[in-house]
Amino acid sequence: MAKILVINGPNLNLLGSREPQQYGHRTLQEIMEDLERFAGACGHELTHTQNNSEGGLVDTVHRAASEGIDYIILNPAGYTHTSIVLRDAMIAVGIPFVEVHLSLVHAREPFRQKSYFSDVAIGVITGFQGEGYMLALQAIVNRIEP
Amino acid sequence: MAKILVINGPNLNLLGSREPQQYGHRTLQEIMEDLERFAGACGHELTHTQNNSEGGLVDTVHRAASEGIDYIILNPAGYTHTSIVLRDAMIAVGIPFVEVHLSLVHAREPFRQKSYFSDVAIGVITGFQGEGYMLALQAIVNRIEP
Amino acid sequence: MAKILVINGPNLNLLGSREPQQYGHRTLQEIMEDLERFAGACGHELTHTQNNSEGGLVDTVHRAASEGIDYIILNPAGYTHTSIVLRDAMIAVGIPFVEVHLSLVHAREPFRQKSYFSDVAIGVITGFQGEGYMLALQAIVNRIEP
Amino acid sequence: MAKILVINGPNLNLLGSREPQQYGHRTLQEIMEDLERFAGACGHELTHTQNNSEGGLVDTVHRAASEGIDYIILNPAGYTHTSIVLRDAMIAVGIPFVEVHLSLVHAREPFRQKSYFSDVAIGVITGFQGEGYMLALQAIVNRIEP
Amino acid sequence: MAKILVINGPNLNLLGSREPQQYGHRTLQEIMEDLERFAGACGHELTHTQNNSEGGLVDTVHRAASEGIDYIILNPAGYTHTSIVLRDAMIAVGIPFVEVHLSLVHAREPFRQKSYFSDVAIGVITGFQGEGYMLALQAIVNRIEP
Amino acid sequence: MAKILVINGPNLNLLGSREPQQYGHRTLQEIMEDLERFAGACGHELTHTQNNSEGGLVDTVHRAASEGIDYIILNPAGYTHTSIVLRDAMIAVGIPFVEVHLSLVHAREPFRQKSYFSDVAIGVITGFQGEGYMLALQAIVNRIEP
Amino acid sequence: MAKILVINGPNLNLLGSREPQQYGHRTLQEIMEDLERFAGACGHELTHTQNNSEGGLVDTVHRAASEGIDYIILNPAGYTHTSIVLRDAMIAVGIPFVEVHLSLVHAREPFRQKSYFSDVAIGVITGFQGEGYMLALQAIVNRIEP
Amino acid sequence: MAKILVINGPNLNLLGSREPQQYGHRTLQEIMEDLERFAGACGHELTHTQNNSEGGLVDTVHRAASEGIDYIILNPAGYTHTSIVLRDAMIAVGIPFVEVHLSLVHAREPFRQKSYFSDVAIGVITGFQGEGYMLALQAIVNRIEP
Amino acid sequence: MAKILVINGPNLNLLGSREPQQYGHRTLQEIMEDLERFAGACGHELTHTQNNSEGGLVDTVHRAASEGIDYIILNPAGYTHTSIVLRDAMIAVGIPFVEVHLSLVHAREPFRQKSYFSDVAIGVITGFQGEGYMLALQAIVNRIEP
Amino acid sequence: MAKILVINGPNLNLLGSREPQQYGHRTLQEIMEDLERFAGACGHELTHTQNNSEGGLVDTVHRAASEGIDYIILNPAGYTHTSIVLRDAMIAVGIPFVEVHLSLVHAREPFRQKSYFSDVAIGVITGFQGEGYMLALQAIVNRIEP
Amino acid sequence: MAKILVINGPNLNLLGSREPQQYGHRTLQEIMEDLERFAGACGHELTHTQNNSEGGLVDTVHRAASEGIDYIILNPAGYTHTSIVLRDAMIAVGIPFVEVHLSLVHAREPFRQKSYFSDVAIGVITGFQGEGYMLALQAIVNRIEP
Amino acid sequence: MAKILVINGPNLNLLGSREPQQYGHRTLQEIMEDLERFAGACGHELTHTQNNSEGGLVDTVHRAASEGIDYIILNPAGYTHTSIVLRDAMIAVGIPFVEVHLSLVHAREPFRQKSYFSDVAIGVITGFQGEGYMLALQAIVNRIEP
Repeated sequence: MAKILVINGPNLNLLGSREPQQYGHRTLQEIMEDLERFAGACGHELTHTQNNSEGGLVDTVHRAASEGIDYIILNPAGYTHTSIVLRDAMIAVGIPFVEVHLSLVHAREPFRQKSYFSDVAIGVITGFQGEGYMLALQAIVNRIEP
Repeated sequence: MAKILVINGPNLNLLGSREPQQYGHRTLQEIMEDLERFAGACGHELTHTQNNSEGGLVDTVHRAASEGIDYIILNPAGYTHTSIVLRDAMIAVGIPFVEVHLSLVHAREPFRQKSYFSDVAIGVITGFQGEGYMLALQAIVNRIEP
Repeated sequence: MAKILVINGPNLNLLGSREPQQYGHRTLQEIMEDLERFAGACGHELTHTQNNSEGGLVDTVHRAASEGIDYIILNPAGYTHTSIVLRDAMIAVGIPFVEVHLSLVHAREPFRQKSYFSDVAIGVITGFQGEGYMLALQAIVNRIEP
Repeated sequence: MAKILVINGPNLNLLGSREPQQYGHRTLQEIMEDLERFAGACGHELTHTQNNSEGGLVDTVHRAASEGIDYIILNPAGYTHTSIVLRDAMIAVGIPFVEVHLSLVHAREPFRQKSYFSDVAIGVITGFQGEGYMLALQAIVNRIEP
Repeated sequence: MAKILVINGPNLNLLGSREPQQYGHRTLQEIMEDLERFAGACGHELTHTQNNSEGGLVDTVHRAASEGIDYIILNPAGYTHTSIVLRDAMIAVGIPFVEVHLSLVHAREPFRQKSYFSDVAIGVITGFQGEGYMLALQAIVNRIEP
Repeated sequence: MAKILVINGPNLNLLGSREPQQYGHRTLQEIMEDLERFAGACGHELTHTQNNSEGGLVDTVHRAASEGIDYIILNPAGYTHTSIVLRDAMIAVGIPFVEVHLSLVHAREPFRQKSYFSDVAIGVITGFQGEGYMLALQAIVNRIEP
Repeated sequence: MAKILVINGPNLNLLGSREPQQYGHRTLQEIMEDLERFAGACGHELTHTQNNSEGGLVDTVHRAASEGIDYIILNPAGYTHTSIVLRDAMIAVGIPFVEVHLSLVHAREPFRQKSYFSDVAIGVITGFQGEGYMLALQAIVNRIEP
Repeated sequence: MAKILVINGPNLNLLGSREPQQYGHRTLQEIMEDLERFAGACGHELTHTQNNSEGGLVDTVHRAASEGIDYIILNPAGYTHTSIVLRDAMIAVGIPFVEVHLSLVHAREPFRQKSYFSDVAIGVITGFQGEGYMLALQAIVNRIEP
Repeated sequence: MAKILVINGPNLNLLGSREPQQYGHRTLQEIMEDLERFAGACGHELTHTQNNSEGGLVDTVHRAASEGIDYIILNPAGYTHTSIVLRDAMIAVGIPFVEVHLSLVHAREPFRQKSYFSDVAIGVITGFQGEGYMLALQAIVNRIEP
Repeated sequence: MAKILVINGPNLNLLGSREPQQYGHRTLQEIMEDLERFAGACGHELTHTQNNSEGGLVDTVHRAASEGIDYIILNPAGYTHTSIVLRDAMIAVGIPFVEVHLSLVHAREPFRQKSYFSDVAIGVITGFQGEGYMLALQAIVNRIEP
Repeated sequence: MAKILVINGPNLNLLGSREPQQYGHRTLQEIMEDLERFAGACGHELTHTQNNSEGGLVDTVHRAASEGIDYIILNPAGYTHTSIVLRDAMIAVGIPFVEVHLSLVHAREPFRQKSYFSDVAIGVITGFQGEGYMLALQAIVNRIEP
Repeated sequence: MAKILVINGPNLNLLGSREPQQYGHRTLQEIMEDLERFAGACGHELTHTQNNSEGGLVDTVHRAASEGIDYIILNPAGYTHTSIVLRDAMIAVGIPFVEVHLSLVHAREPFRQKSYFSDVAIGVITGFQGEGYMLALQAIVNRIEP
């Protein structure tokens, strides 16, 4: 059994209401519950968290290390493109992670084309809205017991 | 009657003491009280807040949405040039806002020439020191009842 | 009593008919008359001019100096982004000025992001359509007698 | 019957004498007369103008709108690469136009590779010397009655 | 029932032998057979093809349109970063597609950071080696019957 | 009598069906037949070819040289922006050519602003959809017998 | 006697465990105790703090000013390269500071080559791991009583 | 005997009053009279002109050609950095010219580092204030009779 | 005895006729026969091939691997600067190769300054026309038996 | 006991007289004598040298290797930003070194922001004027016997 | 009486033989003798030197300061574009200087467009071949006694 | 019989000891002796020199011209990427030369990708370690008597 943590970055608490054509219609809570169910069915434990603060996300990552989290699903949202500090935290704790983006960032503003996480992730999944988290979980589950 | 919120970004709590040739001599408190008075005289309600934290500012913006704020006067200070996350929050809640800068950012360091807010604001007012807030308020008041 | 001159750059004579979603529905004449009235009510004298030619605008600025103009409200329109010559004229005469743009230039083509005037202005007001002139006048009036 | 105006930019009055290997040996007058004849034969009215001044060209464009010109053939010459103001005039009046260059600008200095007109034209014809005007006229005539 | 086509770009025929630390140890044939089985189990028809030639891949895409393919899983391999022609073909036929990369391109040479496909795909899956195809198929299957 | 060859690049076989707002409604076959008729009426022989492959287009150009083609009308489509190899072939055989683009490339993606052909062509015609070929043919016919 | 504050930025609480080849084997606590001892032996008072949050660091800097801190030793860690807000705070309070980096940032990723602090510091010490703090302290002590 | 024309660009009519630390204390009239005297003493005829308009300067250059001017001393002032049109005029008439700048442009704003004239001049003289014209005249006189 | 393959890229079949000042006067056939003779004299087997197609060149490289080629002399011609796909093929098969260019690419267009092969070759030989192949062969022969 | 060499680059012989606000008031000789004393007191041998020539500095570095120097304190002065040759010499001999700059280069011209030495040094000390050498020596002494 | 030193940079000893179309036909010796005569006639003392070495030129500049040189005429030749070290020497000694270039550098390679000297010179004279030195001397003489 | 000079740039005197994986194991002396023997056997005279100084290398090149050297083999080492002065010397004397690099510079730091010599050489040979000199000599010998 593995411990999996989903870390949701800033503004994702608004999911479902905010720009649905970009991010989909389901709320974060609904998406997370699906993930918990699926992980549980596979014999793993999945928890999740959301934070609007860069420092708060760094604290979360540090805590994940001390709590023995095995895998992280990380959606850094707007911090994807600006946070060296969160990147440093991910590298420091060394927990393997999948990077997920709900919207198709490649079709958006130029400043969203840069990620501080993609080169140190296991893999990156972009553009499938809420479904992206489930694909990431699937990838991790398969990786645990191929 | 409209509800107007002034959001002051980092270091603005030092106003009046910090580099007065750039930012003017009046304290933030003095400037805000003038705004409250003027808004009240026009029949509107103006409140204000200040925060040094990026995540804290995002929380403020989310709260503004749930509290029914109609217009925002936003001075993102140093986050103007770096915070995609705060930009995302402003777009997510969709409250129309005027961007204000006290100093003439155009005459300062190159890294201050980029704003993550100007292309999604109603308008931008730069360089009039504390007076800039009053011009922004005037613009909003005129907009409400032209 | 102060003498204030509004200098309107190229194509602004078409105001009201040209791309109203960008520039608003009022004609230049209507906007200028409002300004004259407000300035007069404040005890100042406001005149205005419009010119499509770069050299003509330079001549206007030189004449303003010899006629004792105290403040200029300058909307350089398309010359904002290309005219070093007009910038040189403004610096040469040394009359303090407010830069005004009717449209939200920050949300338009990349070549409109550069201004040859903003770093030598008192302040810059962008995006409020015709209302921007009035805010500029207000800023000047307040500056004369704070 | 359509009204077509050919607008010739700066230095084109020297055509025939100036750098013939780049611009050809015929004078502007000769080329324009051919165009008038051909347009007349097709039942349209073609007039032409030449101007060395940016502001003068803007005035010409404004006048074209008030005189009911249907199509413009525009050779902005050196202003092609520098005049946002003339671009703004073309967009403001909204008269469809074909952009013509006599020389093969693609084989010349790097600063001639940028045009402020090509993305808002009907089409662009480059490198055929005086013949380019005739091709542009042909394109317009075909467009009127396909 | 949907028709799904997997298009494999250049050098992917060497999969299993070529740089296994980047691309994994399974051969293309083995991976494709897994996909066929899974698609079949879901009631869909999946076929696959591989081609080293840019023109050949364009022909494949054109043929997919005339054969009524509903979804494409596209791994353009080295053409990801250079082929405007293949991009044009994908847009021309308008078949929705998922872009898959076996290696973590974000951690490789700078010239691999640009994709001509990501901004017009449904979504992008990068870095999971052969598993990436299965995640893409899963995403398509879920999309067909959510 | 001259021998003229029209070389059509990738995806042009889809003309008429593919993105008609960009490329027009007529099929490539219809456009080519018009050209053949017009060339014939002028006493010249016009043939045409289409190819999706870069190497195939190079072969076509080599063959044109050995078959005594006098002029080429070249629409390199997506290869316009990427094919040094096709540029090399055109220079190597030395047959004078007119470059034609159906869509107004100047109003499209930044990567379409670069052409590997324009600086070595007789001239360039952009944005007139299928009509552009006819203008190119006209230019060649006039060039043969001015 | 001078009051000296050491401000440690994000992730430095992990020191000793995190990437020891980059950052050394001693914990932050051990390094800070050495500094306190040395400062005390020189007759000065040294305190220290660590914070993962940008806003929290700004608050710390503001507090330092009101508590009469004379010198700051600042290791902004990942915020070195992104935080205009922290730079603004340092300039606003005007306390002279030495910038310290444990790792040799010059030998790392390109995005670590930019510092928002170096041009407003007394001096910069880079690459000596934990020893760098002691060198900074030495520099300050010498500066107080040369 | 040679005919020499001094062409003074925009804002130079203000010479003597405008920013004397950059441009010197003598008026344009005084400087020109010195030049006339010196040229006359050498047996040449020197005339001068000043113009704030780009188109006006182009007209001047065209006229110089038809009036048989042998040499031009050109100070394009602010148009130095922006006017392709004036460059084109200089090349078109082919009159050899010396480029003069009063201020040391190399020590000023980055946008003043580019000249559209220097690569087609006989030579360039920068930074000697009014004296620069005399050096240019000397250079021309020596060139006429070495 | 070693097996050596010379791979000639696009347009090299025209060697001898095409731009002789750049590429020399000898035909590809003549140059290749010299190489065969020299390799044979040294006890090695040399074969050669030429291809205008990127995909065809990739196929050639794959075949070389399965046929046990020990060394490749590669002249990618125009694909040098654009083909990531051919680079990937060379790395995938891992056959050591010498990169040869006939012309002095360093003295030509800027787009010819980038090679996708030089950093993974044994060495690079540029500018000696047909002689360059012989130098490459010599280098390989010396490497086999130093 | 270790042998330490201080290498002073060009113009440092002028120290004390040249721009004291940038470089301090002490002469190089005074600073070096302090270092000798301190090194001697620690039981190490310190020598120093100064050279204005790039080649001369390379010779010095080569000689240091043959004379068994254990550590170098290197102030490359103006060569910091331009000398690949001196960098190559430092890497070639492999003697560990500390890079020192007297002035705060980060607050100076853009061309001083690049160092060819920082990524291969033990560490870098910038901005403490003459004191910087002493800090470097301290760092080396501590490194020898921690 | 003033002491004037002409410093000639690398390769200028070849003057007269080297590329005469760029640099003129007179030898350095001939040009210098003219200068000595003219300076003497004006009551000043002019000496000259030439050096191919960067360090040697720095030594020359240092010596000029100790020998009481009042003005320098500096032609840094190829070091113009690369030598921060020589720039530093010129600033360090503070002797006012005129920068001279024989060829019209503005019409040559891009890497010759940058000068490390122009922003700290009295003025710059470019393109008049050997005559440029005389103009520089004239400028200095006039400056001494205006 | 031809006179050939090998010019070795800075740090090449360390060959054999310095980074052998980059530069090979043979000393410069051993390599040069091989070249002398081979040149002698072909009836030519080969001499060689090494210099760490830019000015010294320029002197060497000037001397080569006066001594009647027919060909140069030039390895500018670190000066390859920085010395405009040495480039100027090579062009000034006009002796044809082959540029040789021992290491595969294309696989090294970005600042090694620029050469100031390649566009004016006969040809360039890179990456064959000491063997590269022999290939260069071979190329010259073949060129003398093809």
